[in-house]
Amino acid sequence: MSDNPTIFGKILRGEIPCTKVYEDDTVLAFKDINPHAKVHVVLIPKTHITWLRNATPAQQQTLGQLLLAAPKVAEAAGILKSGYRVIINDGPDSHGEVPHLHLHILGGQDLGTKIA
Amino acid sequence: MSDNPTIFGKILRGEIPCTKVYEDDTVLAFKDINPHAKVHVVLIPKTHITWLRNATPAQQQTLGQLLLAAPKVAEAAGILKSGYRVIINDGPDSHGEVPHLHLHILGGQDLGTKIA
Repeated sequence: MSDNPTIFGKILRGEIPCTKVYEDDTVLAFKDINPHAKVHVVLIPKTHITWLRNATPAQQQTLGQLLLAAPKVAEAAGILKSGYRVIINDGPDSHGEVPHLHLHILGGQDLGTKIA
Repeated sequence: MSDNPTIFGKILRGEIPCTKVYEDDTVLAFKDINPHAKVHVVLIPKTHITWLRNATPAQQQTLGQLLLAAPKVAEAAGILKSGYRVIINDGPDSHGEVPHLHLHILGGQDLGTKIA
């Protein structure tokens, strides 16, 4: 992790504080500091994958763990029953900002049917 | 698959046509018939997982394959370089409609910074 200069790398190393929502051996989830919904959690793998396009077949297990963790994060955030939306941004049109793969988990309100 | 009564099960069985964008042994991607963006592709696993919350650790590999396929789908759709957004809906507030796990892959236009 020491070669991960992103803000999420700093959070993983404890150099920047976060409001933890869920953690296990492979993932960490924390509140987004600039929430787009009533509940907005960021879920990241502890290993450093930059963008989804750069993930390799060797990281398939990590990616699977990440998706399996999403409903656990939603449960920890109190939005599993009411529902949640998972968003991954990759590339200019998506406005992804941090080059450490992350899932936005949104909920706590009606998210609408419009997804773009 | 024969016990999968959803519209995506019907597409997988060839009972309903689709405009195929990408396919491999484990996933199928096709154009959404009600697009929310200039490019809007639906990516599904060939095995039936209903909602993300119902995925089991035994399906971890399938989930990993699904995320690894997302940039391949974006490339096949011509939006890998320009960027894409992946969306998964699960539960009432998200308005997910079809109980066969699917990733919406959106792009071909500026998707904005607002994600909810």
